[in-house]
Amino acid sequence: MPKLRLYAVILAFLCVPTGWATTDTSYSQADVETAILLRDDAMSGTRAWNIVESLTTEVGPRLAGSEAEARARDWAVENLTRYGFENVRVEPFMIEGWRRGAETAEVVSPFPQTLAITSLGNSVATPANGVEAEVVLFESLAALRAAPDDSLKGKIAYVGHAMKRTQDGSSYGHFVRLRSAGAVEAGRRGAIATLIRSIGTDSHRMPHTGNMSYSSDVTPIPIAALSNPDADQLERMAQRGQSIRVKLTLTPSYTGVVESGNVVAELPGSDLADELVVIGGHLDSWDLGTGAIDDGAGVAITMEVLRRIKEAGLKPRRTIRLVLWGSEEVGLLGGYAYADKHKDTLRNHVVGTESDFGAGRIWKITRSINEQAKPVADKIAELVEPLGIAPGSNSARSSGPDLSPMNAQGFPGFRFVQDGSDYFDLHHTPDDTLDKIDPAAMDQNVAAYLVFVWMAANSNVSDWGWPAEQ
Amino acid sequence: MPKLRLYAVILAFLCVPTGWATTDTSYSQADVETAILLRDDAMSGTRAWNIVESLTTEVGPRLAGSEAEARARDWAVENLTRYGFENVRVEPFMIEGWRRGAETAEVVSPFPQTLAITSLGNSVATPANGVEAEVVLFESLAALRAAPDDSLKGKIAYVGHAMKRTQDGSSYGHFVRLRSAGAVEAGRRGAIATLIRSIGTDSHRMPHTGNMSYSSDVTPIPIAALSNPDADQLERMAQRGQSIRVKLTLTPSYTGVVESGNVVAELPGSDLADELVVIGGHLDSWDLGTGAIDDGAGVAITMEVLRRIKEAGLKPRRTIRLVLWGSEEVGLLGGYAYADKHKDTLRNHVVGTESDFGAGRIWKITRSINEQAKPVADKIAELVEPLGIAPGSNSARSSGPDLSPMNAQGFPGFRFVQDGSDYFDLHHTPDDTLDKIDPAAMDQNVAAYLVFVWMAANSNVSDWGWPAEQ
Repeated sequence: MPKLRLYAVILAFLCVPTGWATTDTSYSQADVETAILLRDDAMSGTRAWNIVESLTTEVGPRLAGSEAEARARDWAVENLTRYGFENVRVEPFMIEGWRRGAETAEVVSPFPQTLAITSLGNSVATPANGVEAEVVLFESLAALRAAPDDSLKGKIAYVGHAMKRTQDGSSYGHFVRLRSAGAVEAGRRGAIATLIRSIGTDSHRMPHTGNMSYSSDVTPIPIAALSNPDADQLERMAQRGQSIRVKLTLTPSYTGVVESGNVVAELPGSDLADELVVIGGHLDSWDLGTGAIDDGAGVAITMEVLRRIKEAGLKPRRTIRLVLWGSEEVGLLGGYAYADKHKDTLRNHVVGTESDFGAGRIWKITRSINEQAKPVADKIAELVEPLGIAPGSNSARSSGPDLSPMNAQGFPGFRFVQDGSDYFDLHHTPDDTLDKIDPAAMDQNVAAYLVFVWMAANSNVSDWGWPAEQ
Repeated sequence: MPKLRLYAVILAFLCVPTGWATTDTSYSQADVETAILLRDDAMSGTRAWNIVESLTTEVGPRLAGSEAEARARDWAVENLTRYGFENVRVEPFMIEGWRRGAETAEVVSPFPQTLAITSLGNSVATPANGVEAEVVLFESLAALRAAPDDSLKGKIAYVGHAMKRTQDGSSYGHFVRLRSAGAVEAGRRGAIATLIRSIGTDSHRMPHTGNMSYSSDVTPIPIAALSNPDADQLERMAQRGQSIRVKLTLTPSYTGVVESGNVVAELPGSDLADELVVIGGHLDSWDLGTGAIDDGAGVAITMEVLRRIKEAGLKPRRTIRLVLWGSEEVGLLGGYAYADKHKDTLRNHVVGTESDFGAGRIWKITRSINEQAKPVADKIAELVEPLGIAPGSNSARSSGPDLSPMNAQGFPGFRFVQDGSDYFDLHHTPDDTLDKIDPAAMDQNVAAYLVFVWMAANSNVSDWGWPAEQ
């Protein structure tokens, strides 16, 4: 669309003499008009869905540190190069690998039947023949924590919770603590294994995986998630008052130190080329699904943003950097590796945001920026308002999971909040597949990102709110 | 609710002198009033959901011929006896057993990833190490049938289809032919295995199982169903034009001759006790889910109908017989066993119907009855009309799957047609679980069955349309 540039120039020319131009000097009216053209053109249809279709079909599941994640990096490098971006490269880093094994569970008595489960990421294995024990049920992590030490000796702990769907996904942060800490809390009390209700909001026989961690002062015990219908079933059995025995077999393994990596590509800037506006998504996914919403969508939305700017023949003042992070799911390892590798140039990152909350429409902006950046940020908000996006809080220092290590060091927050009403139905399950994505919602995301990226890369504001250097 | 009987008597008494009574002599106004009381009382809440909760929780999956199906018969006998029904008994019969084994599939090249599959019921196994071959894709059973003999030599056939959801489920009868005949048609052309798109309407990673059969003139080959998202994935891969190799491992086994059985219970009639009105559902289920909608719901709805008549202290003229069929899923074997065992008294079965299309609301009646039964059948239709049920065709000689062997011999058809818009989302998948059932919809079913059963058991019509004896 080279015609875009021409339109932008004509419109900018028309606006100035008629007094439509802003009096604020933090951005140019020409850039506003370009942003509008980019936005409206995206709303008439983008290739974002085609990109996520390609990644999920040709690579499929891509667990951190696996051969499949390496194929995803190859896929990214090939496509980013084909799109004509510059400085396309892999920035490798090493992680401790983990691989899923067999995973089965069954109620042995009093009501024999199988249960749909999945191992949590990083769980230790049971013995190859499994473990069989009585189950002790807790309604929440708090209830488990209230149990005395050694009270679960030789038992399997089951822990439920009451997570419900929310639009912004904010309750996940609370309820996910059960996934992270359940094995430690049960192990501390003598349990030989832990089962949790999936951290999810659906009612399908799809257990939700996700990362967990151990504590050096507690012997690691295996942990798996039951699907919500299976958790319901176990709780109903327990209401009958008889002792329930479950056999659990999990055979995951640690694969030693393996390679992961971030993939980086750029549209170089002109007069402010050293300054960076950064967007991206994470390339790795859990192994159960094909990682369409988590986070093929974010990868595709942000790749398409750069592709459209490039194809329009537009040249930004600042460098627009795309980062496709690796090993997000296993502890934001790509985000930490990036912040470490680029530690000497972190303050060159003016502003940025990661797309990592599925493929739903954006409905809100949150940020943590200074007064200087407010005019351009407010203009961005005004320009995306026709997409159904409203301004939110200015007290959220978050730019997404993989930028959070930078946020922790003062990188100003900016985030497009997507509608995640169904996100935790699919999150970390086999059901995270392409058919769950609405292409039109992806187009709306691309349109909003285009406005943000173009305005941020071209404004006169280079300081969005990094704290003063010590 | 013994008060029900009193109300009925009072109302009948009130009606006669005021001229409200029907002039038709095929049923009494007292029975109409009783039917209305039974109906309205059911709509204020029944125990049907509690019954299916008990079956699905305490027994769970109950594959035909399995130890679990035997436990389901024990459960039925215990509960039917507890409810105070008479002649509670198991009518055993023998079947050829089949048991699921391991089942895995993966794309080996060009895009390595696993596929969610399940073995169809009665499939032979692959070698223990699986088979690996190129996949040849067909868009439909018709397209497979058009392929020349020997054209699939050494290949795996994949066959898709275009089934879409319908309210009455009527397209299942057409599309299920692929499940039944796919292995024979592919085997006839030299294929070593068959994959089909699940006969289902959902988009979850839940493959749909179901019975298949072989033909004596074609070497049996293994057959499995892909979930719909996995079928989409395979078809997308094929669009890329490269040869696709899949490895398939299925290890089901035949377990020899094993016992199954129908469970029968009765509310004995008075002056017409030899004549039967029969209702029921099937006790067996597929092994992947807990058989809540298929057919725990039908079992529970019809058990609750008898329970409520008994608890109201009502005594029907004809015997109301409940049959909970076994081994429906593997070829209506309980239905055939019943028709055979009772062959000398088939014509004592005046009318009846099986509940076996999930737990959704009834919206239509279909039937195939004679002129003599029309007044009482029309009155039943009038009495269930306030439940949102409309009269349908009088040319459907079906009373449900397990009564179809009797229908084939002339048993008049009568069926309450349930809303099955989501039935084939769940049918024969792991997702057929209790959480999918709306208790209020079950109450509406119970209310309709109560009207039917009470009117049919008490009318003056003993011939609903059996053809004249030869």
